[in-house]
Amino acid sequence: MLNEVPQLAQLLKLLQQVPYLASKNIYRVANYFLTLDNHKMEQFCGALLDLKSNISKCPVCYMWCTKGKACSLCSSLKRDQSLVCVVESWHEMLMIEKTGGYKGVYHILGGLICPLEGIGPDQLTIMSLVKRVESGTVKEIILATSQTPEGEATSSYIASKLKMMPVIISCLARGIPVGSSIESMDRLTVYKALSERRPF
Amino acid sequence: MLNEVPQLAQLLKLLQQVPYLASKNIYRVANYFLTLDNHKMEQFCGALLDLKSNISKCPVCYMWCTKGKACSLCSSLKRDQSLVCVVESWHEMLMIEKTGGYKGVYHILGGLICPLEGIGPDQLTIMSLVKRVESGTVKEIILATSQTPEGEATSSYIASKLKMMPVIISCLARGIPVGSSIESMDRLTVYKALSERRPF
Repeated sequence: MLNEVPQLAQLLKLLQQVPYLASKNIYRVANYFLTLDNHKMEQFCGALLDLKSNISKCPVCYMWCTKGKACSLCSSLKRDQSLVCVVESWHEMLMIEKTGGYKGVYHILGGLICPLEGIGPDQLTIMSLVKRVESGTVKEIILATSQTPEGEATSSYIASKLKMMPVIISCLARGIPVGSSIESMDRLTVYKALSERRPF
Repeated sequence: MLNEVPQLAQLLKLLQQVPYLASKNIYRVANYFLTLDNHKMEQFCGALLDLKSNISKCPVCYMWCTKGKACSLCSSLKRDQSLVCVVESWHEMLMIEKTGGYKGVYHILGGLICPLEGIGPDQLTIMSLVKRVESGTVKEIILATSQTPEGEATSSYIASKLKMMPVIISCLARGIPVGSSIESMDRLTVYKALSERRPF
Protein backbone atom coordinates (compact mmCIF):
# COMPACT_ATOMS: atom_id res chain seq x y z
CA MET A 1 0.00 0.00 0.00
CA LEU A 2 2.76 2.44 0.95
CA ASN A 3 4.43 1.81 -2.42
CA GLU A 4 1.59 3.76 -3.94
CA VAL A 5 2.47 6.86 -1.93
CA PRO A 6 6.25 7.06 -2.38
CA GLN A 7 6.48 10.47 -0.66
CA LEU A 8 5.09 9.01 2.54
CA ALA A 9 7.20 5.86 2.30
CA GLN A 10 10.32 7.98 1.88
CA LEU A 11 9.49 10.13 4.90
CA LEU A 12 8.86 7.06 7.07
CA LYS A 13 12.15 5.57 5.92
CA LEU A 14 14.07 8.72 6.83
CA LEU A 15 12.31 9.09 10.19
CA GLN A 16 13.33 5.52 11.01
CA GLN A 17 16.94 6.67 10.88
CA VAL A 18 16.41 9.41 13.46
CA PRO A 19 17.65 8.10 16.80
CA TYR A 20 15.55 8.16 19.98
CA LEU A 21 12.34 8.17 18.01
CA ALA A 22 10.44 5.06 19.04
CA SER A 23 9.31 3.13 15.97
CA LYS A 24 5.77 3.14 17.39
CA ASN A 25 5.79 6.92 17.22
CA ILE A 26 7.11 7.29 13.69
CA TYR A 27 3.61 7.32 12.21
CA ARG A 28 2.55 9.97 14.68
CA VAL A 29 5.52 12.15 13.89
CA ALA A 30 4.85 11.62 10.17
CA ASN A 31 1.30 12.76 10.85
CA TYR A 32 2.62 15.89 12.51
CA PHE A 33 4.59 16.76 9.39
CA LEU A 34 1.70 15.83 7.09
CA THR A 35 -0.58 18.30 8.84
CA LEU A 36 2.00 21.05 9.35
CA ASP A 37 1.22 24.24 7.44
CA ASN A 38 3.50 25.38 4.63
CA HIS A 39 5.10 28.20 6.58
CA LYS A 40 6.03 26.01 9.53
CA MET A 41 7.36 23.30 7.25
CA GLU A 42 9.65 25.76 5.48
CA GLN A 43 10.77 27.10 8.83
CA PHE A 44 11.64 23.58 9.99
CA CYS A 45 13.59 22.70 6.85
CA GLY A 46 15.21 26.11 6.87
CA ALA A 47 16.44 25.55 10.42
CA LEU A 48 17.93 22.19 9.44
CA LEU A 49 19.69 23.47 6.35
CA ASP A 50 20.87 26.51 8.29
CA LEU A 51 22.81 24.21 10.61
CA LYS A 52 24.94 22.86 7.81
CA SER A 53 25.84 26.23 6.38
CA ASN A 54 26.16 28.39 9.48
CA ILE A 55 27.43 26.26 12.32
CA SER A 56 30.84 24.82 13.10
CA LYS A 57 32.77 23.60 16.12
CA CYS A 58 34.94 25.93 18.19
CA PRO A 59 38.58 24.80 17.67
CA VAL A 60 39.31 25.31 21.39
CA CYS A 61 36.35 23.92 23.35
CA TYR A 62 34.52 22.02 20.54
CA MET A 63 31.15 23.60 21.30
CA TRP A 64 28.98 24.39 18.27
CA CYS A 65 29.17 28.06 17.37
CA THR A 66 28.18 30.36 14.54
CA LYS A 67 30.60 29.92 11.64
CA GLY A 68 33.13 32.74 11.34
CA LYS A 69 32.39 34.04 14.85
CA ALA A 70 34.61 33.39 17.86
CA CYS A 71 33.13 31.02 20.44
CA SER A 72 31.30 33.20 22.95
CA LEU A 73 32.76 31.40 25.95
CA CYS A 74 36.35 30.97 24.81
CA SER A 75 36.53 34.65 23.85
CA SER A 76 34.69 35.98 26.91
CA LEU A 77 36.60 38.17 29.35
CA LYS A 78 34.00 37.45 32.02
CA ARG A 79 34.87 33.74 32.11
CA ASP A 80 37.88 32.29 33.87
CA GLN A 81 39.91 30.89 30.97
CA SER A 82 42.20 29.03 33.35
CA LEU A 83 39.38 26.81 34.69
CA VAL A 84 38.31 24.12 32.23
CA CYS A 85 35.37 21.78 32.78
CA VAL A 86 35.68 18.58 30.72
CA VAL A 87 32.29 17.19 29.59
CA GLU A 88 31.12 14.42 27.31
CA SER A 89 28.94 16.50 24.99
CA TRP A 90 27.33 19.88 24.57
CA HIS A 91 24.14 18.68 26.34
CA GLU A 92 26.07 18.27 29.60
CA MET A 93 27.68 21.64 28.99
CA LEU A 94 24.25 23.29 28.67
CA MET A 95 23.14 21.52 31.87
CA ILE A 96 26.10 23.03 33.74
CA GLU A 97 25.50 26.45 32.16
CA LYS A 98 21.88 26.32 33.37
CA THR A 99 23.05 26.11 36.99
CA GLY A 100 24.40 29.62 36.48
CA GLY A 101 27.11 28.92 39.03
CA TYR A 102 30.05 28.09 36.80
CA LYS A 103 32.36 30.83 35.60
CA GLY A 104 35.06 28.85 33.83
CA VAL A 105 35.17 27.46 30.28
CA TYR A 106 34.62 23.99 28.82
CA HIS A 107 36.21 21.21 26.84
CA ILE A 108 33.79 18.95 25.00
CA LEU A 109 35.14 15.44 24.49
CA GLY A 110 32.63 14.38 21.87
CA GLY A 111 31.89 11.07 23.61
CA LEU A 112 33.36 8.67 26.14
CA ILE A 113 35.95 5.93 25.76
CA CYS A 114 34.03 2.77 24.98
CA PRO A 115 36.07 -0.06 23.43
CA LEU A 116 32.92 -2.14 22.84
CA GLU A 117 31.61 0.55 20.50
CA GLY A 118 35.04 1.09 18.98
CA ILE A 119 35.53 4.51 20.58
CA GLY A 120 39.09 4.97 21.76
CA PRO A 121 40.90 8.08 23.03
CA ASP A 122 41.82 9.03 19.46
CA GLN A 123 38.18 9.49 18.48
CA LEU A 124 37.75 12.06 21.25
CA THR A 125 39.29 15.50 21.70
CA ILE A 126 41.63 14.34 24.49
CA MET A 127 44.88 15.15 22.62
CA SER A 128 43.59 18.64 22.02
CA LEU A 129 42.87 18.98 25.76
CA VAL A 130 46.39 17.86 26.59
CA LYS A 131 47.79 20.49 24.20
CA ARG A 132 45.51 23.09 25.77
CA VAL A 133 47.01 22.29 29.17
CA GLU A 134 50.55 22.19 27.75
CA SER A 135 50.12 25.73 26.46
CA GLY A 136 50.18 26.80 30.11
CA THR A 137 46.98 28.84 30.30
CA VAL A 138 45.01 26.23 32.27
CA LYS A 139 45.25 26.08 36.08
CA GLU A 140 42.49 23.59 36.90
CA ILE A 141 40.71 20.82 35.03
CA ILE A 142 37.33 19.63 36.34
CA LEU A 143 36.55 16.12 35.08
CA ALA A 144 32.74 16.24 34.77
CA THR A 145 32.04 12.97 33.00
CA SER A 146 29.13 10.72 34.01
CA GLN A 147 29.37 8.36 36.98
CA THR A 148 29.25 5.38 34.64
CA PRO A 149 32.01 2.85 33.85
CA GLU A 150 32.71 4.63 30.54
CA GLY A 151 32.69 8.03 32.21
CA GLU A 152 35.06 6.90 34.97
CA ALA A 153 37.38 5.21 32.46
CA THR A 154 37.54 8.34 30.33
CA SER A 155 38.27 10.52 33.37
CA SER A 156 40.98 8.12 34.53
CA TYR A 157 42.58 8.14 31.10
CA ILE A 158 42.61 11.94 30.97
CA ALA A 159 43.96 12.15 34.52
CA SER A 160 46.79 9.78 33.61
CA LYS A 161 47.68 11.92 30.57
CA LEU A 162 47.77 15.10 32.66
CA LYS A 163 49.46 13.57 35.70
CA MET A 164 52.90 15.05 35.10
CA MET A 165 51.65 18.53 34.21
CA PRO A 166 51.36 21.47 36.60
CA VAL A 167 47.56 21.49 36.65
CA ILE A 168 45.02 20.79 39.41
CA ILE A 169 42.69 17.93 38.49
CA SER A 170 39.32 17.74 40.24
CA CYS A 171 36.06 15.94 39.66
CA LEU A 172 32.37 16.37 40.54
CA ALA A 173 31.18 15.62 44.07
CA ARG A 174 29.41 12.30 44.56
CA GLY A 175 26.51 11.97 46.94
CA ILE A 176 22.79 12.07 47.52
CA PRO A 177 20.97 14.25 44.93
CA VAL A 178 19.21 17.31 46.33
CA GLY A 179 15.62 16.41 47.22
CA SER A 180 16.24 12.64 47.35
CA SER A 181 15.71 10.37 50.30
CA ILE A 182 18.56 8.10 51.40
CA GLU A 183 16.12 5.20 51.29
CA SER A 184 15.71 5.48 47.52
CA MET A 185 19.44 5.54 46.82
CA ASP A 186 21.67 2.64 45.86
CA ARG A 187 24.23 1.31 48.31
CA LEU A 188 27.28 2.66 46.50
CA THR A 189 25.95 6.22 46.38
CA VAL A 190 25.18 6.14 50.11
CA TYR A 191 28.66 4.74 50.78
CA LYS A 192 30.28 7.48 48.68
CA ALA A 193 28.14 10.17 50.32
CA LEU A 194 29.30 8.90 53.72
CA SER A 195 32.96 8.45 52.95
CA GLU A 196 33.20 11.73 51.05
CA ARG A 197 31.22 13.67 53.68
CA ARG A 198 31.77 17.39 54.08
CA PRO A 199 31.75 19.71 57.11
CA PHE A 200 28.24 20.97 57.92
CA MET B 1 24.74 30.27 26.15
CA LEU B 2 22.32 29.07 23.47
CA ASN B 3 21.55 32.68 22.55
CA GLU B 4 25.02 32.81 21.08
CA VAL B 5 24.23 30.00 18.63
CA PRO B 6 20.82 31.06 17.27
CA GLN B 7 20.79 28.28 14.65
CA LEU B 8 20.95 25.64 17.37
CA ALA B 9 18.41 27.42 19.58
CA GLN B 10 15.98 27.61 16.67
CA LEU B 11 16.36 23.90 15.88
CA LEU B 12 15.78 22.93 19.52
CA LYS B 13 12.70 25.17 19.64
CA LEU B 14 11.26 23.53 16.52
CA LEU B 15 12.08 20.02 17.72
CA GLN B 16 10.21 20.76 20.96
CA GLN B 17 7.06 21.13 18.88
CA VAL B 18 7.38 17.67 17.33
CA PRO B 19 5.04 15.34 19.23
CA TYR B 20 6.18 12.03 20.74
CA LEU B 21 9.75 13.21 20.99
CA ALA B 22 10.68 13.05 24.68
CA SER B 23 12.20 16.35 25.75
CA LYS B 24 15.17 14.43 27.14
CA ASN B 25 15.92 13.18 23.65
CA ILE B 26 15.70 16.50 21.86
CA TYR B 27 19.42 17.18 22.32
CA ARG B 28 20.24 13.76 20.96
CA VAL B 29 18.06 14.23 17.91
CA ALA B 30 19.59 17.69 17.43
CA ASN B 31 22.98 15.98 17.57
CA TYR B 32 21.87 13.56 14.88
CA PHE B 33 21.02 16.45 12.57
CA LEU B 34 24.21 18.33 13.49
CA THR B 35 26.34 15.43 12.42
CA LEU B 36 24.30 14.42 9.37
CA ASP B 37 26.15 14.84 6.09
CA ASN B 38 24.98 17.41 3.55
CA HIS B 39 23.47 14.90 1.18
CA LYS B 40 21.36 13.20 3.84
CA MET B 41 20.23 16.53 5.22
CA GLU B 42 19.03 17.67 1.80
CA GLN B 43 17.30 14.34 1.33
CA PHE B 44 15.50 14.73 4.65
CA CYS B 45 14.36 18.29 3.95
CA GLY B 46 13.46 17.32 0.40
CA ALA B 47 11.22 14.52 1.69
CA LEU B 48 9.45 16.93 4.04
CA LEU B 49 8.87 19.60 1.42
CA ASP B 50 7.81 16.94 -1.05
CA LEU B 51 4.91 16.03 1.24
CA LYS B 52 3.42 19.49 1.01
CA SER B 53 3.60 19.72 -2.76
CA ASN B 54 2.86 16.17 -3.84
CA ILE B 55 0.47 14.62 -1.37
CA SER B 56 -3.22 15.08 -0.76
CA LYS B 57 -6.11 13.18 0.79
CA CYS B 58 -8.29 10.82 -1.29
CA PRO B 59 -11.78 12.41 -1.43
CA VAL B 60 -13.38 8.99 -0.93
CA CYS B 61 -11.41 7.15 1.76
CA TYR B 62 -9.27 10.05 3.10
CA MET B 63 -6.00 8.14 2.83
CA TRP B 64 -2.98 10.19 1.78
CA CYS B 65 -2.21 9.70 -1.90
CA THR B 66 -0.08 11.23 -4.61
CA LYS B 67 -1.63 14.49 -5.78
CA GLY B 68 -3.40 14.24 -9.12
CA LYS B 69 -3.44 10.43 -9.02
CA ALA B 70 -6.47 8.35 -8.10
CA CYS B 71 -6.24 6.58 -4.72
CA SER B 72 -4.77 3.14 -5.44
CA LEU B 73 -7.32 1.34 -3.28
CA CYS B 74 -10.48 3.22 -4.22
CA SER B 75 -9.68 2.78 -7.91
CA SER B 76 -8.55 -0.84 -7.68
CA LEU B 77 -10.59 -3.51 -9.43
CA LYS B 78 -9.00 -6.17 -7.23
CA ARG B 79 -10.54 -4.72 -4.08
CA ASP B 80 -14.12 -5.23 -3.03
CA GLN B 81 -15.51 -1.69 -3.22
CA SER B 82 -18.69 -2.73 -1.42
CA LEU B 83 -16.83 -3.68 1.81
CA VAL B 84 -15.67 -0.65 3.78
CA CYS B 85 -13.49 -0.85 6.90
CA VAL B 86 -13.80 2.26 9.08
CA VAL B 87 -10.58 3.15 10.94
CA GLU B 88 -9.37 6.03 13.06
CA SER B 89 -6.28 6.96 11.06
CA TRP B 90 -3.99 5.79 8.28
CA HIS B 91 -1.71 4.00 10.80
CA GLU B 92 -4.52 1.58 11.64
CA MET B 93 -5.22 1.18 7.94
CA LEU B 94 -1.59 0.23 7.29
CA MET B 95 -1.77 -2.27 10.18
CA ILE B 96 -4.78 -3.95 8.58
CA GLU B 97 -3.12 -3.88 5.14
CA LYS B 98 -0.08 -5.61 6.64
CA THR B 99 -2.20 -8.61 7.61
CA GLY B 100 -2.65 -9.19 3.88
CA GLY B 101 -6.04 -10.74 4.55
CA TYR B 102 -8.36 -7.85 3.84
CA LYS B 103 -9.68 -7.31 0.35
CA GLY B 104 -12.13 -4.46 0.86
CA VAL B 105 -11.53 -0.71 0.99
CA TYR B 106 -11.27 1.79 3.86
CA HIS B 107 -12.73 4.92 5.32
CA ILE B 108 -10.39 6.97 7.49
CA LEU B 109 -12.19 8.98 10.16
CA GLY B 110 -9.30 11.28 10.99
CA GLY B 111 -9.76 10.76 14.74
CA LEU B 112 -12.27 9.62 17.34
CA ILE B 113 -15.12 11.47 19.00
CA CYS B 114 -13.69 12.98 22.18
CA PRO B 115 -15.75 15.81 23.72
CA LEU B 116 -13.02 16.52 26.28
CA GLU B 117 -10.63 17.42 23.47
CA GLY B 118 -13.36 19.26 21.57
CA ILE B 119 -13.58 16.63 18.82
CA GLY B 120 -17.19 16.07 17.77
CA PRO B 121 -18.63 14.10 14.83
CA ASP B 122 -18.34 17.19 12.60
CA GLN B 123 -14.54 17.23 12.89
CA LEU B 124 -14.41 13.67 11.53
CA THR B 125 -15.33 12.30 8.10
CA ILE B 126 -18.53 10.63 9.37
CA MET B 127 -20.92 12.64 7.16
CA SER B 128 -18.87 11.68 4.15
CA LEU B 129 -19.14 8.01 5.21
CA VAL B 130 -22.93 8.32 5.50
CA LYS B 131 -23.08 9.81 1.98
CA ARG B 132 -20.87 7.00 0.72
CA VAL B 133 -23.38 4.47 2.10
CA GLU B 134 -26.33 6.48 0.77
CA SER B 135 -24.89 6.28 -2.74
CA GLY B 136 -25.74 2.57 -2.60
CA THR B 137 -22.38 1.03 -3.50
CA VAL B 138 -21.58 -0.18 0.02
CA LYS B 139 -22.88 -3.54 1.27
CA GLU B 140 -20.98 -3.91 4.55
CA ILE B 141 -19.32 -1.52 6.99
CA ILE B 142 -16.71 -2.92 9.42
CA LEU B 143 -16.30 -0.64 12.42
CA ALA B 144 -12.62 -1.12 13.27
CA THR B 145 -12.09 1.57 15.90
CA SER B 146 -10.06 0.91 19.05
CA GLN B 147 -11.58 -0.88 22.04
CA THR B 148 -11.36 2.33 24.09
CA PRO B 149 -14.23 4.50 25.40
CA GLU B 150 -13.64 6.99 22.55
CA GLY B 151 -13.44 4.22 19.97
CA GLU B 152 -16.64 2.58 21.19
CA ALA B 153 -18.46 5.92 21.33
CA THR B 154 -17.43 6.73 17.78
CA SER B 155 -18.54 3.31 16.53
CA SER B 156 -21.88 3.65 18.33
CA TYR B 157 -22.43 7.07 16.80
CA ILE B 158 -21.67 5.81 13.29
CA ALA B 159 -23.88 2.75 13.81
CA SER B 160 -26.77 4.99 14.92
CA LYS B 161 -26.35 7.14 11.80
CA LEU B 162 -26.42 4.08 9.50
CA LYS B 163 -29.13 2.19 11.37
CA MET B 164 -31.92 2.86 8.88
CA MET B 165 -29.83 2.15 5.80
CA PRO B 166 -29.66 -1.18 3.93
CA VAL B 167 -26.09 -1.95 4.98
CA ILE B 168 -24.59 -4.68 7.18
CA ILE B 169 -22.69 -3.23 10.15
CA SER B 170 -20.04 -5.40 11.78
CA CYS B 171 -17.14 -4.84 14.15
CA LEU B 172 -13.83 -6.50 15.04
CA ALA B 173 -13.84 -9.68 17.12
CA ARG B 174 -12.95 -9.23 20.79
CA GLY B 175 -10.93 -11.82 22.67
CA ILE B 176 -7.55 -13.11 23.75
CA PRO B 177 -4.71 -11.90 21.47
CA VAL B 178 -2.84 -14.63 19.61
CA GLY B 179 0.14 -15.76 21.70
CA SER B 180 -1.22 -14.37 24.98
CA SER B 181 -1.97 -16.30 28.14
CA ILE B 182 -5.38 -15.93 29.74
CA GLU B 183 -3.63 -15.22 33.01
CA SER B 184 -2.17 -11.98 31.71
CA MET B 185 -5.50 -10.68 30.38
CA ASP B 186 -7.87 -8.29 32.10
CA ARG B 187 -11.23 -9.55 33.38
CA LEU B 188 -13.33 -7.82 30.74
CA THR B 189 -11.37 -9.30 27.84
CA VAL B 190 -11.69 -12.80 29.28
CA TYR B 191 -15.41 -12.24 29.80
CA LYS B 192 -15.84 -11.04 26.20
CA ALA B 193 -13.77 -13.93 24.85
CA LEU B 194 -16.03 -16.33 26.75
CA SER B 195 -19.35 -14.79 25.90
CA GLU B 196 -18.43 -14.22 22.24
CA ARG B 197 -16.90 -17.71 21.88
CA ARG B 198 -16.80 -19.36 18.46
CA PRO B 199 -17.15 -22.97 17.28
CA PHE B 200 -13.80 -24.82 17.38
